[in-house]
Amino acid sequence: MTTEKRVYTFGNKKAEGNGKMRELLGGKGANLAEMNLIGIPVPPGFTITTEVCTEYYEKGREAVIEMIRPDVEAAIKGIEQQTGMTFGSDRLPLLVSVRSGARASMPGMMDTILNLGLNDTAVEALAKRTGNERFAWDSYRRFVQMYGDVVLGMKPESKEDEDPFEVIIADIKKERNVKLDTELTTADMKELVKRFKAAVKKQTGSDFPTDPWEQLWGAIMAVFQSWMNDRAILYRKLNNIPAEWGTAVNVQAMVFGNMGDRSATGVAFSRDAATGENIFNGEYLVNAQGEDVVAGIRTPQQITTEGSRRWAKAQGVSEEERKAKYPSLEEVMPEAYKELFDIQHHLETYFTDMQDMEFTIQDGKLWMLQTRNGKRTGAAMLKIAMDMLHEGLIDEKTAVKRCEPAKLDELLHPVFDAAAMKEAKVLTKGLPASPGAATGEVVFFAEDAAKWHAAGRNVILVRIETSPEDLSGMNAAEGILTARGGMTSHAAVVARGMGKCCVSGAGELNIDYKARTIKVGQTVIKEGDWISLNGSTGEVYIGQVATKAAELNADFTKLLELAKKYSTMRVRANADTPHDAQTAFSFGAEGIGLCRTEHMFFEASRIKAVREMILADDEAGRRVALAKLLPMQRGDFEALFEVMNGYPVTVRLLDPPLHEFVPQDEKGQREMAEEMHVSFEKIKSRVASLHEVNPMLGHRGCRLGNTFPEITEMQARAIIEAAMNVEKRGLPVKVEIMVPLVGNHKELRYQKNIIDRTAEQVFAERNDKIDYMVGTMIEIPRAAVTANQIAEVADFFSFGTNDLTQMTLGFSRDDIAKFLPIYLEKGILKADPFQTLDQNGVGQLVKEGVFKGRNTKPQLKCGICGEHGGDPASVEFCHFAGLNYVSCSPFRVPIAWLAAAHAALK
Amino acid sequence: MTTEKRVYTFGNKKAEGNGKMRELLGGKGANLAEMNLIGIPVPPGFTITTEVCTEYYEKGREAVIEMIRPDVEAAIKGIEQQTGMTFGSDRLPLLVSVRSGARASMPGMMDTILNLGLNDTAVEALAKRTGNERFAWDSYRRFVQMYGDVVLGMKPESKEDEDPFEVIIADIKKERNVKLDTELTTADMKELVKRFKAAVKKQTGSDFPTDPWEQLWGAIMAVFQSWMNDRAILYRKLNNIPAEWGTAVNVQAMVFGNMGDRSATGVAFSRDAATGENIFNGEYLVNAQGEDVVAGIRTPQQITTEGSRRWAKAQGVSEEERKAKYPSLEEVMPEAYKELFDIQHHLETYFTDMQDMEFTIQDGKLWMLQTRNGKRTGAAMLKIAMDMLHEGLIDEKTAVKRCEPAKLDELLHPVFDAAAMKEAKVLTKGLPASPGAATGEVVFFAEDAAKWHAAGRNVILVRIETSPEDLSGMNAAEGILTARGGMTSHAAVVARGMGKCCVSGAGELNIDYKARTIKVGQTVIKEGDWISLNGSTGEVYIGQVATKAAELNADFTKLLELAKKYSTMRVRANADTPHDAQTAFSFGAEGIGLCRTEHMFFEASRIKAVREMILADDEAGRRVALAKLLPMQRGDFEALFEVMNGYPVTVRLLDPPLHEFVPQDEKGQREMAEEMHVSFEKIKSRVASLHEVNPMLGHRGCRLGNTFPEITEMQARAIIEAAMNVEKRGLPVKVEIMVPLVGNHKELRYQKNIIDRTAEQVFAERNDKIDYMVGTMIEIPRAAVTANQIAEVADFFSFGTNDLTQMTLGFSRDDIAKFLPIYLEKGILKADPFQTLDQNGVGQLVKEGVFKGRNTKPQLKCGICGEHGGDPASVEFCHFAGLNYVSCSPFRVPIAWLAAAHAALK
Repeated sequence: MTTEKRVYTFGNKKAEGNGKMRELLGGKGANLAEMNLIGIPVPPGFTITTEVCTEYYEKGREAVIEMIRPDVEAAIKGIEQQTGMTFGSDRLPLLVSVRSGARASMPGMMDTILNLGLNDTAVEALAKRTGNERFAWDSYRRFVQMYGDVVLGMKPESKEDEDPFEVIIADIKKERNVKLDTELTTADMKELVKRFKAAVKKQTGSDFPTDPWEQLWGAIMAVFQSWMNDRAILYRKLNNIPAEWGTAVNVQAMVFGNMGDRSATGVAFSRDAATGENIFNGEYLVNAQGEDVVAGIRTPQQITTEGSRRWAKAQGVSEEERKAKYPSLEEVMPEAYKELFDIQHHLETYFTDMQDMEFTIQDGKLWMLQTRNGKRTGAAMLKIAMDMLHEGLIDEKTAVKRCEPAKLDELLHPVFDAAAMKEAKVLTKGLPASPGAATGEVVFFAEDAAKWHAAGRNVILVRIETSPEDLSGMNAAEGILTARGGMTSHAAVVARGMGKCCVSGAGELNIDYKARTIKVGQTVIKEGDWISLNGSTGEVYIGQVATKAAELNADFTKLLELAKKYSTMRVRANADTPHDAQTAFSFGAEGIGLCRTEHMFFEASRIKAVREMILADDEAGRRVALAKLLPMQRGDFEALFEVMNGYPVTVRLLDPPLHEFVPQDEKGQREMAEEMHVSFEKIKSRVASLHEVNPMLGHRGCRLGNTFPEITEMQARAIIEAAMNVEKRGLPVKVEIMVPLVGNHKELRYQKNIIDRTAEQVFAERNDKIDYMVGTMIEIPRAAVTANQIAEVADFFSFGTNDLTQMTLGFSRDDIAKFLPIYLEKGILKADPFQTLDQNGVGQLVKEGVFKGRNTKPQLKCGICGEHGGDPASVEFCHFAGLNYVSCSPFRVPIAWLAAAHAALK
Repeated sequence: MTTEKRVYTFGNKKAEGNGKMRELLGGKGANLAEMNLIGIPVPPGFTITTEVCTEYYEKGREAVIEMIRPDVEAAIKGIEQQTGMTFGSDRLPLLVSVRSGARASMPGMMDTILNLGLNDTAVEALAKRTGNERFAWDSYRRFVQMYGDVVLGMKPESKEDEDPFEVIIADIKKERNVKLDTELTTADMKELVKRFKAAVKKQTGSDFPTDPWEQLWGAIMAVFQSWMNDRAILYRKLNNIPAEWGTAVNVQAMVFGNMGDRSATGVAFSRDAATGENIFNGEYLVNAQGEDVVAGIRTPQQITTEGSRRWAKAQGVSEEERKAKYPSLEEVMPEAYKELFDIQHHLETYFTDMQDMEFTIQDGKLWMLQTRNGKRTGAAMLKIAMDMLHEGLIDEKTAVKRCEPAKLDELLHPVFDAAAMKEAKVLTKGLPASPGAATGEVVFFAEDAAKWHAAGRNVILVRIETSPEDLSGMNAAEGILTARGGMTSHAAVVARGMGKCCVSGAGELNIDYKARTIKVGQTVIKEGDWISLNGSTGEVYIGQVATKAAELNADFTKLLELAKKYSTMRVRANADTPHDAQTAFSFGAEGIGLCRTEHMFFEASRIKAVREMILADDEAGRRVALAKLLPMQRGDFEALFEVMNGYPVTVRLLDPPLHEFVPQDEKGQREMAEEMHVSFEKIKSRVASLHEVNPMLGHRGCRLGNTFPEITEMQARAIIEAAMNVEKRGLPVKVEIMVPLVGNHKELRYQKNIIDRTAEQVFAERNDKIDYMVGTMIEIPRAAVTANQIAEVADFFSFGTNDLTQMTLGFSRDDIAKFLPIYLEKGILKADPFQTLDQNGVGQLVKEGVFKGRNTKPQLKCGICGEHGGDPASVEFCHFAGLNYVSCSPFRVPIAWLAAAHAALK
């Protein structure tokens, strides 16, 4: 299993690994190696493989240290040779960074240690060498704090408890009567280090380690340990990353962005990660160290002058003020900027994808610390893929594969309704960190966001700044608003990854966690008040703002065209109205896979007839009521058939239990009694007689049509007559009549007999005929198990995986909230089985159903119509299960096409 | 498919068929042939095969007549030669009977025509030949009525409409001012025939057919047609007889029991069909025709003198009166009796089973019309099989096979409690027609019996006499009481077949259908009043009489011993209390397959602690409540383990949703609030939070144990500690801990980890250890589908086919009443899937579960614990599916053993 080599060195344009070794070296490590190989300046270092992480969890800390010690010692020696510095030296101490680096990028999830190697003697040497005592002690106090938090476990478990180091900093600021860290003096830094060490001693019972080697092993093992921390586990769960992958550890010589005004550190993107525009961009801070940019503590400056001007305009900052206070890197360090610009272009062309890079300028010299394919919004993903296709950088198949199906969802999200926007009152403006529109009730804590969301409320999570601990709350929120932090702050990066609307760095916000209020000038927003965010402009509105569907551009159309070209499985939509059908059609649906006829029953004009039918004492009474419904249903079907213009339309016969059509409360029943001129007691008793203990498993689906055949007759007549009417107008029609909830071939036979008999009657009346198919849902486990028998009667199968999941797993969709969260947390379930098809269980029944059905009828058309039809992983499963099509909600049709294409290209 | 020969003749001790040809000739036809072959006097005739019935439904009436005409004509010629009479002759007209005869006996279900061949000239010839004009015209009017009803469709569909022939008879009686048919004169008979024919003409538009051949074809086809009448279909459904079997038609020369005082007709049994005693018995009527005895219109007399004396004693008739009015056949016609006695002995010895025979004595000459293995009560079945085994007539395996598992149920039915009997007030006494005890509300109509039964009420169906139309009502009733008819009346025969308690011929009853009352002297019983029947004594009691369990005899013990000897699969019981366990043990259960621990939670002393647990706000609170339950559960388990004395005991962990333990109504909640010293609002809100839309698919089973692991901990501790305590007392214990509702192997893994950890703790505390197994229910479809994974964790599987049926079929057991009756009626379902395992659907999952489970763990122990474990057909399925055991309710253990033995002997 495990390769012999556990440590891979790189530096000075040489590397033992390369960019293809992501699995072994992690994404960061592989790219550090690859950058060396293509001549990019990278501080020398080495990568400990992901397999060692796995060994760490198998064999334990000591065994692993023994195993890798010789290689690590040799690698450190290599860095010493390249840098001319020595680890633990009193004169020229080598300082290193220790970072995690998993196969898939996990931003903010893994802990990082900078400035490792510092101690009371090394700090003096560093001060001496750099001639910058404050810098040296600032680095030292940062190291002690980071190491204390991450390796020595000083960081409190709960967010409510304060970080002891932050308490000490706050104390000192108070004593010195200053507000900013930058106002602290060198002496203050020394005092901080002293107090930090005392705090460590007090809390851990041991002295802060002074031996650099002890520090290094501690840091390496802490990275491994952090692979299993709660945040990392949650992130992996949200992103379907297996725990077995493990993380690599990257150890590199430190370069310092905080060595003075000729030093800087920053993050850059080869294209715009929000819009996809082919514009180099990024943010930096002069005289700052690594984490300062992404932590969102200072508002960073733009790298390019053009970007800087845009930013200033958006923020209402004058050109003079901008130049004075927020100049671009291009203006401040033109040479380093030029080199950075060339490198980003080199890297993007080399990796043929948009790059997200970290860099540090130490005393005027540029060092690249990381490059990776940049996370992007759905819009950017689409634009970049289509642009690169047009630029000839990638081919069609690659362009398709570059577009993640799930991310298309963002493009299909509603945006604010223009009319509503005019009335909307702007509260403030921040940075457009992640596009889209969101509206919800204000909450301030991640836990509340999760709770309120679980209770069915829409929330906006409002934080001064976010941190990885907020992840679950961000996931639960409709949108995220922060007062601090830039476009690359934690909030912004994570929100884009989630496809969630985010406005960051809205500095006017005065957030009071205790009082649970936001103040902007005189306006006070309390917890629970509604606000709305426009993630594409950065605007924040007071109250709820109406939204409307997104409009799609040429890139989208092109992608859809490519996806349809490369997928072998087809995509239909679930649509019950001409409006939905039109949407589906415009999104490329090749038919309707599920039209739920009962949705037509709820309109005010119809529900009365439906209720008359339910109240009827006998078949004759039901027939009178059904006769009223017939022309309405026929009209509905005609409209649907017209929209679909010859694409198949699968009409499902009445499915829900009848109690869904009558009011359950006394008030509604009294109204119904009055309207229908019958006694309240009769209504009440009829409703009571419809009550079921487990309605999911009750009198519904074809059980209705088999106990009240006249309902099926009416529906069959409406469908057939509608189809004939539309054909008469010269439009093609393809009708598929679908019988729900069949568990037994005889149930289908009975229904098919009624349908065929009705059709023959209509044909005779009109002296004309049309083709139609009669098929069934496969949504009861028994139907899958006996699919060979059912296929003798059915012209097609449509797997109703919603109900099939409920029955196969024994999960009532309405009741799982009591245990699903716990099951997800404990890992008993990997995903909500109603979102992603349970391939081992439900999937086996789907495969069995297809196999047995086609055994009877080799050309049997098989599809799926359930929420899963729009879930990329499930669509892939359907492709490999041999289904002819998936049918999903209209807004997910493009996602399904893209997922189907991905599956076909696998 | 179809054999060439369609008509088989017999007569004069020769036959083309034989007794083995039941499938082709039907039971009656095969035995008529066989009786000829062994020298029994049988009127000559022929049998048209069952395959012709199938052809009738495939090809239609005319095609079938053409096909069999030559053979039928030849066969009639044969009868003519043997009898010296001619079909359609003016002088010596041959008269025949036409009867149905299916493979399985279907008493009263198929229609019969007697005296066929009569017309206005033949009747004169018959009168002349017999010198009995009244007899001839009585036969003729009977023929016209029967033929009119059955062949010409004069019989009204609904019972509420009157038979037109009966109306005419009533009219004439009124005109003549007489009460009994026997008081009508020859002239009256002639008038009846005239009016009957006029009624036929009026209703059908055609004259009554005078051509004997036209009559014959009409009758034969009517028999085929009656195979598909509603009563026949219902009977087949109740008795699991396939429609494809078809019925044969038997045509025989008529012999007349109504030719005068030297003629008689009767029914005889070679042993007592109610008790099984080896006593020849039966009933007869002098000067009567075929159907008169079974129709229950006149009270028949006993065949043997001993039987006659017994009857008189039971009825309170003096020996003088008996001799004068109700002499036995033995006394009246000693020679014919002697011959009948010898024949019944011959037939029983020949067929090695109890025979049910029909005979007619025509002018002193005995003719056998039918013999078949007699229907019998469960008690008789057991006694006859064991007696014949001891007599050396049959061997052990045959004796086992002779006992129908389902019929054992009757022996296990409760009988009246002796103490309650002393207080019970006798209303009247009838014949002990079918043993057992029953108590219920009086109803007078079959439809009401079915409706009230469906509404959950216990009913006694009270009729003057019953007819095949009452079948569904009899099936729904707890017991049947009739005012007329003997031990072989329709009511008596059918009730014994159903294993239902029946008292027949209770002549004191004055039943008024219109007023819906029974009068006995001054006592009036109204519809809805309770009465109780003792089917073993014939006593009828006013009101409800308490019942108690049956006591079992040596025959029963012997049968059980043989069943255990010959079955390979084992039988356990579902038992939750030491009392149930004791019952199960005494019925031969080899272990407990399902102990539902939650049943221990409902006792008054415990429910409070359970509710405390439910109300607890957190784990700590739950633990406090669970600690109170621990000693109670431990004590329960100790008692169970002691009873089972080393046989395995499978304890299932908590299964039902928690809402089952709290009151759902306000009153109950207020009481609970008071008792628990918390606010009503808290109780109400907690109960509301436990509500589920589909509780069947909700938060229950191992989902409870995985969300509240402390519950599993407590239960595991109680089980392990109990087992160790009992072992310490020197008794062997075999513990199997069963985790319910597993759908995913990880759920089981979590539970097993908790159980193992708890066991280790107990072992450490006691410095001792015991063996135990941890297995799971397979009751969720996904568990069967992923059984290979689950078997990695499970030590055993127990198929919970109740829930597996609910989920595989999507049938909520609580809600199927809305469509199940219709599905059964339409034949969509053959049986209630909760009574008889759905082998094609659920059964496939059981087989898949066993196969996949043993693929992982070849020695995996598999059993079933559901209602199906006591259903004979399902037990047979389990045997062939390779299960190690079935577990059923204690009272069905003997049935399961017998069914398992039958399966093994197949």
